[in-house]
Amino acid sequence: MAVQPDQFLMNCWYVAAWDHELIDGKLLAHTILEQPVLLYKGDSGRVVALDDRCAHRGAKLSNGRLEGDCVRCMYHGLKYDPSGRCVQIPGQDVIPAKLGVRSYPVVERDRLVWIWTGDPAQADPALIVDFPYLREPGWRGVPGYLHYKANYLLIVDNLSDFAHLAFVHTKTLGGSEEYAFKTKPVAIERLERGFRVVRWHMNAESPPFHRKVVRNGARVDRCNTGTMHVPGIFFLESVFAPAGSGAEKGNLEGAKQYRNCQFFTPETLRTTHFFWNYLHDYDVHDPTIALSLHDSMVQGFMEDKAIIEGQQQVLDADPDFRMHPIAADAPLAHFRRTLSGLIAAERQKPQSAAA
Amino acid sequence: MAVQPDQFLMNCWYVAAWDHELIDGKLLAHTILEQPVLLYKGDSGRVVALDDRCAHRGAKLSNGRLEGDCVRCMYHGLKYDPSGRCVQIPGQDVIPAKLGVRSYPVVERDRLVWIWTGDPAQADPALIVDFPYLREPGWRGVPGYLHYKANYLLIVDNLSDFAHLAFVHTKTLGGSEEYAFKTKPVAIERLERGFRVVRWHMNAESPPFHRKVVRNGARVDRCNTGTMHVPGIFFLESVFAPAGSGAEKGNLEGAKQYRNCQFFTPETLRTTHFFWNYLHDYDVHDPTIALSLHDSMVQGFMEDKAIIEGQQQVLDADPDFRMHPIAADAPLAHFRRTLSGLIAAERQKPQSAAA
Amino acid sequence: MAVQPDQFLMNCWYVAAWDHELIDGKLLAHTILEQPVLLYKGDSGRVVALDDRCAHRGAKLSNGRLEGDCVRCMYHGLKYDPSGRCVQIPGQDVIPAKLGVRSYPVVERDRLVWIWTGDPAQADPALIVDFPYLREPGWRGVPGYLHYKANYLLIVDNLSDFAHLAFVHTKTLGGSEEYAFKTKPVAIERLERGFRVVRWHMNAESPPFHRKVVRNGARVDRCNTGTMHVPGIFFLESVFAPAGSGAEKGNLEGAKQYRNCQFFTPETLRTTHFFWNYLHDYDVHDPTIALSLHDSMVQGFMEDKAIIEGQQQVLDADPDFRMHPIAADAPLAHFRRTLSGLIAAERQKPQSAAA
Repeated sequence: MAVQPDQFLMNCWYVAAWDHELIDGKLLAHTILEQPVLLYKGDSGRVVALDDRCAHRGAKLSNGRLEGDCVRCMYHGLKYDPSGRCVQIPGQDVIPAKLGVRSYPVVERDRLVWIWTGDPAQADPALIVDFPYLREPGWRGVPGYLHYKANYLLIVDNLSDFAHLAFVHTKTLGGSEEYAFKTKPVAIERLERGFRVVRWHMNAESPPFHRKVVRNGARVDRCNTGTMHVPGIFFLESVFAPAGSGAEKGNLEGAKQYRNCQFFTPETLRTTHFFWNYLHDYDVHDPTIALSLHDSMVQGFMEDKAIIEGQQQVLDADPDFRMHPIAADAPLAHFRRTLSGLIAAERQKPQSAAA
Repeated sequence: MAVQPDQFLMNCWYVAAWDHELIDGKLLAHTILEQPVLLYKGDSGRVVALDDRCAHRGAKLSNGRLEGDCVRCMYHGLKYDPSGRCVQIPGQDVIPAKLGVRSYPVVERDRLVWIWTGDPAQADPALIVDFPYLREPGWRGVPGYLHYKANYLLIVDNLSDFAHLAFVHTKTLGGSEEYAFKTKPVAIERLERGFRVVRWHMNAESPPFHRKVVRNGARVDRCNTGTMHVPGIFFLESVFAPAGSGAEKGNLEGAKQYRNCQFFTPETLRTTHFFWNYLHDYDVHDPTIALSLHDSMVQGFMEDKAIIEGQQQVLDADPDFRMHPIAADAPLAHFRRTLSGLIAAERQKPQSAAA
Repeated sequence: MAVQPDQFLMNCWYVAAWDHELIDGKLLAHTILEQPVLLYKGDSGRVVALDDRCAHRGAKLSNGRLEGDCVRCMYHGLKYDPSGRCVQIPGQDVIPAKLGVRSYPVVERDRLVWIWTGDPAQADPALIVDFPYLREPGWRGVPGYLHYKANYLLIVDNLSDFAHLAFVHTKTLGGSEEYAFKTKPVAIERLERGFRVVRWHMNAESPPFHRKVVRNGARVDRCNTGTMHVPGIFFLESVFAPAGSGAEKGNLEGAKQYRNCQFFTPETLRTTHFFWNYLHDYDVHDPTIALSLHDSMVQGFMEDKAIIEGQQQVLDADPDFRMHPIAADAPLAHFRRTLSGLIAAERQKPQSAAA
């Protein structure tokens, strides 16, 4: 294994794919944390993640062939089992015991395929961050994927300050610039592995994406609760209650709610896999609502993408560029400090023998 | 500010744009001397040049919004005035006094927008090289722009020896290869910040671009006077007189004249902004002449571009490649020596505190 | 001359072109072993290879003009003779004796143009590897060219183990995976500058490319004899005899034979020129057979190309990736050892003064 850049937390679960991407036996090639990974679901239904390089001459196993739960390299025919062990070399009777490729711990849960990139001995599925709305029947959404030409932490930064909704997303997700001026985070909760921010906007205009599905221009009391988890997992809980109905005191009658999950998995230091879903809790029998919300989100994400990929270009062009913090940066500063601490800690700890 | 490569003269005016590029309030992003620059004309008519990176998180201000003479970053809404000072942070009452972006001295003159890339305290508009024909009513032309994938000095070199007209531009600007063999520079004048070369070609065939507009195949006495100024500004004065009319003794009766300005502004070490105009002094009421000349020039410049960008590829591929001077290189050798001297001098001088 | 990477054998003949590429006076630009080379056939019929960079300012001579056996740079008009000496500078009477570009020894033989990349004093045409079938009238084929985005030795590796036919080329050149499991090389002959492998497959299904031209599904006794020569020259002799006819004992009655030559010339460390021909010895009056075989080979080579260019990407992405040998690697290991030895030897030997 090549040395990992210090920017990545290795002993950690990352989302590698949506489950539907593997149902047809596809040999899915994904670079994850700068490593080439082959993902597939064997005939038994088991999900497998292997180094995407034949141990013999480095041919891509993703150009190979699925055989049961195994994969065969289609260069010289070496066959690997789900543990990465080579189990056949055509024309050769004895297979060296150590001949094989790296295998990654993987878990399929709630439609997501998670991969553990560090020491396999520490790969405890209980550490997977839970987002129950993906499995609960009262919620409906459409799984999405986008590719970013930017470091994943720039995307985390973006979500750490809802003020960007006002300027980046005025006509899509935000609704008005007033959001940035009139609202303030009521609380920034520092978590051990992340943070939580809550932002109320009372008696606000309903934002365009919501207006599109509820067909109703009534003003709302709007609350966004965002939670960011290490390494780059964002959950957003949104309430749109009739203005003045007392949602801030707990009355959710007539409220419409959304649950959004976003998973940022570093592809490389400069590119990111982005898996997401935006779920709603009303009229879930109607498939057009989820599709409309999906489209609105893509539109909004593309606005973010332009800004964030521009930032990456700026940083690449001049590594000496210094950012200047403003008050609203408190959550992102806390998150970056937390993550750096975890990365530093695992660099010091000796890895288990299985690593 | 990132350290500047030694190849650039910093305390110097460079052309950043034609004035018409800014009339509609456009936020024009131009990399100049490896620095990202935002150019715009505020509602008051004032031209502004700022670092194209929000001081907060490096988002591009050119993705922002013009507000009066100010610009607002459309990521988190920070607003900057023409001096680069941050004047508003949405949701934050106190703005740190030092929060801001670099502002560049700019001057709009004779349809050109000039930028000073060095120490602002030394930005004296009197140092701008004057080309009066852009403002004089007796001359007409069309402003042009081309982008080169080559270092600006390779373009300067190209213009330092008119012999290239014979081979590169035989069928466009040159007219015949005879030009290289039969003519010689009558004088190479070494200037403090450049050089001047004069080349006569007596009783020559009229070159194709001229024949196209005068509709007349008569032979001409042709004189090209080229002046190159630091850092990369080229003026060409051309006389086409009836052959034998005594133009070389000062008789310009029946002569048709051209004035050409070319401004090379380094975008990066390997790419160049090229602003130019080619003006004529006859039949200036007829717009088709300027357009025809413009097209002929573009055709000729594209011939240069192929050669020069090829040179850049050769030099990039092998930094050890050594050029061998010929006699005609005297002007370019003088120019490169002059420029290197000026760059070395400003590296030694301490910059003013404002830099 | 820039320093050559240690991966190249310099004192060696490489194929630079097929002869038909030069018949029309084309100035052919080819990078060979990281060096820019201009190839052309002068009006006298002489083939010339020069450094593709004018000694004056590095303009590409391949953008120039053929004049007899000379070439003129079309920037400032310098003219070079076939030895690389500059013989004319327009507007300058005296030409410095040493002004010139590097000239490479070249030999045109059997439709191939060979270039010697090292010390000219050692360029002995007797060292050119002979493939007589290109000149013998009993054989017919179509010359081919492909460009690989991979180091040439990865292509050499590919041809060192016929087992790849079974997996890469099952449906084109191979015929069945049985080839990998049931056949073994009967002999690996280590040569001083390469190796030879022979592989029989008795009573086999006729592979698709052969079936296409012989229109006959009969089983065959198939023998492939591959010879690899330094630096990357591969010859393949194939016999397809009726099954059970005793071909293995020398009876070639009813056999159909093929002769394939492949020449790998490094363009750069990561790209390769691939010249090849696939000749047959039966029905040579029928041009459609050679064309069909040519197409079948291209189809097969494209299968190799995908695998090999994938390997190059894997190796580029992680220089620490270690390959693990299997038994079938003996030929390629011998070849790489042989080539490394030759390269090391020429690095130690002092070059002749002419180099």
